[in-house]
Amino acid sequence: MVFSHNYLSRIARDIFKACGTPGSEAEIVAEHLVTSSLMGLDSHGIIRIPQYVNAIKEGTIRPGAKVTILKETSTTAIVDAGYNFGQVGGTRGIEVAIEKAKKNSVSSVIVRRSNHAGRLGAYPQLAAEEGFISMAMCSSIGGGHFVSPWGGKEGRLATNPIAFVAPTKGNPIIVDVSTSVASEGKIRVKQQQNELLSEEWILDADGNPSTNPKDFYGQPRGVILPLGGKQGYKGYAFSLMVEIMAGILLGDGYTPKDIKEPINGLWLMVLDISAYMSIKQFKHQIDGLIKYLKSSSPVDDFSGVTVPGELDFGKMEERKRKGIPVENSIWKNIKELAKKLDVKIEAKEKTE
Amino acid sequence: MVFSHNYLSRIARDIFKACGTPGSEAEIVAEHLVTSSLMGLDSHGIIRIPQYVNAIKEGTIRPGAKVTILKETSTTAIVDAGYNFGQVGGTRGIEVAIEKAKKNSVSSVIVRRSNHAGRLGAYPQLAAEEGFISMAMCSSIGGGHFVSPWGGKEGRLATNPIAFVAPTKGNPIIVDVSTSVASEGKIRVKQQQNELLSEEWILDADGNPSTNPKDFYGQPRGVILPLGGKQGYKGYAFSLMVEIMAGILLGDGYTPKDIKEPINGLWLMVLDISAYMSIKQFKHQIDGLIKYLKSSSPVDDFSGVTVPGELDFGKMEERKRKGIPVENSIWKNIKELAKKLDVKIEAKEKTE
Repeated sequence: MVFSHNYLSRIARDIFKACGTPGSEAEIVAEHLVTSSLMGLDSHGIIRIPQYVNAIKEGTIRPGAKVTILKETSTTAIVDAGYNFGQVGGTRGIEVAIEKAKKNSVSSVIVRRSNHAGRLGAYPQLAAEEGFISMAMCSSIGGGHFVSPWGGKEGRLATNPIAFVAPTKGNPIIVDVSTSVASEGKIRVKQQQNELLSEEWILDADGNPSTNPKDFYGQPRGVILPLGGKQGYKGYAFSLMVEIMAGILLGDGYTPKDIKEPINGLWLMVLDISAYMSIKQFKHQIDGLIKYLKSSSPVDDFSGVTVPGELDFGKMEERKRKGIPVENSIWKNIKELAKKLDVKIEAKEKTE
Repeated sequence: MVFSHNYLSRIARDIFKACGTPGSEAEIVAEHLVTSSLMGLDSHGIIRIPQYVNAIKEGTIRPGAKVTILKETSTTAIVDAGYNFGQVGGTRGIEVAIEKAKKNSVSSVIVRRSNHAGRLGAYPQLAAEEGFISMAMCSSIGGGHFVSPWGGKEGRLATNPIAFVAPTKGNPIIVDVSTSVASEGKIRVKQQQNELLSEEWILDADGNPSTNPKDFYGQPRGVILPLGGKQGYKGYAFSLMVEIMAGILLGDGYTPKDIKEPINGLWLMVLDISAYMSIKQFKHQIDGLIKYLKSSSPVDDFSGVTVPGELDFGKMEERKRKGIPVENSIWKNIKELAKKLDVKIEAKEKTE
């Protein structure tokens, strides 16, 4: 099934509203999920609608919860999302960070008690759209500790991604990668498709390398390895950096014992380019850097060097035109949800 | 040959002073190099003395050059090292960053026209010693572009390391890793020892994977791959982040054409923990996190999980006690240098 992004946005918004989400928040979350789907990042897209609705039912997402600033200085803040959607907490967090960077050149904001943040790059991207450089890190407290510390065979860290966005003359450069070798979602997909994993992705519960997804989902569970293969101590080091910035600084703890329901912790940094050079000069230099990178001739199997985010924006253009493909099973879930919530839905498939 | 660190510090200091370096700067550089050697990071240790002396002779390191602030706000600065030692520029840079973070909670400082920075973690470590969290990135402009962008076969980036240091109740956590799979220095060592490289370290000049160091040093040259193996797009993404923060922001360009002599660019961030929680609470939580990480039972070949920096501090204790081993060829170089410069040197080997 293929649907237009506008149609899917409407459905998502209406479903969240029907669960008691204020319109402005439903808008933020729907826009976030559909943008991820448009970019081809399906694991962070509309597939999450049923998960979020379920979390609302269970009380772990609290739509409409007041997002407050607990503590602040001229350049820093602790934003408390009150268990609202991660997207609502993250969006407010980056707004606060942008405000502070406008006045004081650089800012460092953390967001606590915030549910699933979704596509991490979305938040620094909002800052880049206003001409700033921005970095983000995301931890998971209370759960999702699927990733082993280097040399360990039990999970102690989440996939702990790092995002970084810089404006250019065209689409921004969007770095948005986990510090583990793969996400849990990718392993799940491989299992569903009865495929083996690449080597150096997981260890079974006994700490032996495995390519079988079942060894990860077994009882006891296996672990995902930190990014880097034989240099996995580097991925582990980056992951620990994320755990400190986006986890420890929240003050809420760090183990599954500390928090009943897993939440995401965010660290957001915004930097005013004009503290260093004019935005025009910056964009001119970035443009030259991109050309320099692309002047490297490609290896076999590659048509050319791209910059991070470029392929996602390409996919976005394509899906805006052709629509977003949605798997039957996912569409069935969303339809049933809509029916239960009395949300009007007709399977208006996109035809070009 | 094995020497005490105090003896090597004195030799290093006297050699740099004999080349016209002011005493306070010679002290900084000697201390930096010997600390790297103590930590077992020999490629960034006293092995660099002849390289620096040579750079002074060629005029690419200018001892005594005034380090100035070109442009600043309450939280940011561009520090111009005037082609002084990287260690002098970096140390001044982090001092400025600490000062600003003390007053305004967070700071972002870049250092330009600075020679080889050495061990990158040394700078954020200075901030952690005063109770701050600190991050650093290092680019190389004008040369050292041995690392290919993802999918490319020509080098366009340097090994672009990221460092991060956080205080604990004991030794700080020191993340200090390059965003490439290996450093050029490691490949050089393998070549000298006639050993093959691990897979996924390099491509030959035609873009084919190789394990032969000669393919890297050939004419035309091969490339080092970004960190991550099959997930090398992640290492590339981190490397590009470093290139922008510690390279583009300097305003000096980004290609070998832009700058005659390769220099290091630095980005330094310092964050005041007390903007979020008391330093006592922070250290208490970090302590718990370290215990949680270490509670993961080790895989075979590992005696336990360690945190980044832990093994280096262990090595430091050992070498403070037993002395620093120096290869004969390197000692010969240093001795000749000392003789030429009229620096008093006797081979006072350390005996326990």
